[in-house]
Amino acid sequence: MSPEEHLSRVVVLQDSLRAKGLAGALLLDAVDVLYYSGTRQNGALWVPAGAAPVLLVRKSFARARAEGAIRDVRPFPPSKELAATLEARGRVGTPFDAAPQATLDWWRKQLPAMELVDLSAAVRVQRAVKSPMEIAAQRDAAGRLGAVFAEIPTFLRAGMRELDLSVEIESRLRRRGSEGAPRMRGFNNEMSAGIAVAGAAAAEPGCFDGPVVGQGLHAAYPAGSSERVIQRGEPVLVDYCCVYKGYVADMTRVAVIGELAPELLRAHRIAVAIQDEVAAGLVPGAIPAELWERARAHAEREGLGDKFMGPPGDQAKFVAHGIGLELDELPVLAPGFKEPLVAGQVVAVEPKFVFPGLGAVGVENDYAVAAGGGDRLCELSDAVMVV
Amino acid sequence: MSPEEHLSRVVVLQDSLRAKGLAGALLLDAVDVLYYSGTRQNGALWVPAGAAPVLLVRKSFARARAEGAIRDVRPFPPSKELAATLEARGRVGTPFDAAPQATLDWWRKQLPAMELVDLSAAVRVQRAVKSPMEIAAQRDAAGRLGAVFAEIPTFLRAGMRELDLSVEIESRLRRRGSEGAPRMRGFNNEMSAGIAVAGAAAAEPGCFDGPVVGQGLHAAYPAGSSERVIQRGEPVLVDYCCVYKGYVADMTRVAVIGELAPELLRAHRIAVAIQDEVAAGLVPGAIPAELWERARAHAEREGLGDKFMGPPGDQAKFVAHGIGLELDELPVLAPGFKEPLVAGQVVAVEPKFVFPGLGAVGVENDYAVAAGGGDRLCELSDAVMVV
Repeated sequence: MSPEEHLSRVVVLQDSLRAKGLAGALLLDAVDVLYYSGTRQNGALWVPAGAAPVLLVRKSFARARAEGAIRDVRPFPPSKELAATLEARGRVGTPFDAAPQATLDWWRKQLPAMELVDLSAAVRVQRAVKSPMEIAAQRDAAGRLGAVFAEIPTFLRAGMRELDLSVEIESRLRRRGSEGAPRMRGFNNEMSAGIAVAGAAAAEPGCFDGPVVGQGLHAAYPAGSSERVIQRGEPVLVDYCCVYKGYVADMTRVAVIGELAPELLRAHRIAVAIQDEVAAGLVPGAIPAELWERARAHAEREGLGDKFMGPPGDQAKFVAHGIGLELDELPVLAPGFKEPLVAGQVVAVEPKFVFPGLGAVGVENDYAVAAGGGDRLCELSDAVMVV
Repeated sequence: MSPEEHLSRVVVLQDSLRAKGLAGALLLDAVDVLYYSGTRQNGALWVPAGAAPVLLVRKSFARARAEGAIRDVRPFPPSKELAATLEARGRVGTPFDAAPQATLDWWRKQLPAMELVDLSAAVRVQRAVKSPMEIAAQRDAAGRLGAVFAEIPTFLRAGMRELDLSVEIESRLRRRGSEGAPRMRGFNNEMSAGIAVAGAAAAEPGCFDGPVVGQGLHAAYPAGSSERVIQRGEPVLVDYCCVYKGYVADMTRVAVIGELAPELLRAHRIAVAIQDEVAAGLVPGAIPAELWERARAHAEREGLGDKFMGPPGDQAKFVAHGIGLELDELPVLAPGFKEPLVAGQVVAVEPKFVFPGLGAVGVENDYAVAAGGGDRLCELSDAVMVV
């Protein structure tokens, strides 16, 4: 990213502050600070509606100055000097969705002339629309992820544990520069780099808000791969993230050692068809809830409504989610989401079918919303990988 | 963990609620829910001061029932039925340090007869003291971590990138059952599984609240290993976590290809001596701030005060931190921490010295506070590993 890019984001935020009659924005969440400033050092970003932003840094001041786009970087002052440092008075926006109550209460105490109001929606809506530079980073991340997925047939073997498959994928992603697990904004949302789950284990319900969760290694981390041994003929579903320059790519493919049962192959083909139908609809102005409904109806029409997006009785109600600096961004293609799509929003489209006792199949790719339909970020084939 | 263990934790919490005159506790943070219930499914735990706890589960209800110790598990009701489901009235404690303001505001709206008060301290203080079963899990995690560290001389080579060393360590940890990156409670705290940093890169300041942070791969994730190539004669500092059954072990060792400069070897010996002195002082009743001061004075006496716990000008002010289900637990051996230690608290003691331009040396081991001094959880030698 360039300093101009970060500063233009600040300008957009300031327009939004003025439109809301707010005196400024206090950005505390590290990923919000990164988005607007270009640095993820430990600090707080104060954006007055009508003056230059100030970045207060606890650690490391030197790195924040070197990395970031903000010109006015200051060491974080002792708390009793904070009110003299920042001209924060009146109604000030801060995202209530990310900062703990204790953190906001601390700021209220230091800056009593300021009344905090919730700015979650404005920040999330702005961050949902990616610039060409952001889409390029996500395309780069998706390319790295696709390159690792393409290698799966070289190391997937019957008799390996789900965990061993995960380790192979994770280590190859890391060697190609993936920064690790994707960040998530939602309270209690957490995710390792991804999941590799096989056969019936993929059809178990789970805590994570997605169609396939996995058993995990222990009740303490009940998601992702387990020590279960992968068998011939089982669908092996790999759903992974690559994080590159902070940007997340999120893709899913299915592999099999030997042959997949015809009903699973058919469901996989239908998942790809649903994905392609949704992708074609990713144009500015499209209504997310309508795209969800079209995907659901497609699955229903094919007789797979009860297996769409989760095991019967535990089905997730979405078909795509926004991705960017975090895995759980806007927009979401789900019931109730009526705000029209905007060019540059990036979503991971992930139609999946879950067959209790057999496993899960499906596909996932990332697309930028564009006038001609979703611009796909990685061209790796959607076909089942056969070993 | 056993159901009895979890239920006894609930009883301790209820005693604390009654002592504070609270009607109950509303636990929302997933790790708090795991600690008291035994399950980390997606839900909320309501603990009335004088009645049986109720676990409301969004996903997965089946797994929460199967895994957890709570007898009364219910599907999370529609929001308008919440007030009828939970008898939450009057002053109710909930940790303000973990839950976002938006989440607590949502609960306030659903349960208007309830006044939320901050319960962070009580929960953190209780969780700091580990049961024998928890210490056994941490000892198991530390043993796995030590076994991987012991293998480092078999794969550390000059010419590999810090990142390649990280990948080797991380994949071996995962194969031995580590669940991934350690959880952290503090707002904006985040950590991959650990860091492997060499030479001058280890002496750069950073965002993370520890003595050695690393450059990371990009400003977006500015911690941990970089693509820098490891050279002969440099101190290679590995600081890693193993997460087993949810419990974190955290250890540091130093390795070198060839020989370490005498001043670094001397500093390493002093770090081990400081660690051993602190460890001997980990007895019930000891004052954390005094142990910190003793460690600091020891470094000072050896002429290394300006390099202790960080590069000059960016030194961290602690020598040990609590660990358990999260990496940043109580107690902290640091200025201002006056609450006497309690038997069963577990801390990672990590004296380190940072030499700008040269790198970092030091050691880290986990100890349970015990009458005879800290009970060390892993016996792997503290010596510099020479390749």
